[in-house]
Amino acid sequence: MTCLPTTGLEVLDAVECRRLLATGTLGRVLLSVNALPAAFPVNYRLRGDTIVFRTGPGTKLSRAQDVTVVGFEVDHVDAASGTGWSVLVIGAASTVRDRNEIAILEQLRIPSLAGDRLPHFVQISVETISGRRIPASTP
Amino acid sequence: MTCLPTTGLEVLDAVECRRLLATGTLGRVLLSVNALPAAFPVNYRLRGDTIVFRTGPGTKLSRAQDVTVVGFEVDHVDAASGTGWSVLVIGAASTVRDRNEIAILEQLRIPSLAGDRLPHFVQISVETISGRRIPASTP
Repeated sequence: MTCLPTTGLEVLDAVECRRLLATGTLGRVLLSVNALPAAFPVNYRLRGDTIVFRTGPGTKLSRAQDVTVVGFEVDHVDAASGTGWSVLVIGAASTVRDRNEIAILEQLRIPSLAGDRLPHFVQISVETISGRRIPASTP
Repeated sequence: MTCLPTTGLEVLDAVECRRLLATGTLGRVLLSVNALPAAFPVNYRLRGDTIVFRTGPGTKLSRAQDVTVVGFEVDHVDAASGTGWSVLVIGAASTVRDRNEIAILEQLRIPSLAGDRLPHFVQISVETISGRRIPASTP
């Protein structure tokens, strides 16, 4: 862990980033739409080195069908103390098509944010991971 | 408000998006770093049609010094019910340099996530705004 005093944020190593990623349930898929940045919140689970979430027809699914490199961000900030962390993943998003794999993912009971009926699973392979911890304020 | 039954998400109009943006305090600056998507959580306030946050030296500040188009995302999801909303802004980020404006912003007491000492203010003009509400699951 390296301290960066200029911003007050501690850079986290990959092991800690992965541990934090595994604790989260709400993340944001980051991609460009019409050359502009966009973020789409999703409920997710980490399965091995793969982020998995449910989706319906739309931007996230159409990108995953083409196997697109996306970002994925998870953060947690405690409002009272201002402490927390954020983790950023870069990886290839793809639609899960294998029936056996889909059956396994169904068992994970990953809720979709808009009801439980979203029919498709998208996976993001964790290729690079980075993160920062937000320490308590120093008086 | 238009219902999109394929994804289960309701598209919000600009007035509602702006109202929700004003209620939030934690958002994420979205930009590309080395041609890859990235998101940086910040505490912010909405001042008129401008998002304002504090930062130190780093990616967010250096981009703002060049006046860069960025995304800004805010969301709120209730873990128990799975309901919530997300708002996405596109706008030009720039560093606040005017001393009078800085004095006014100091009065807002916007906390930075890593302590209260981050010396620079960055503003993002809200140029386009969009959002979606995540309704309760339908059984």
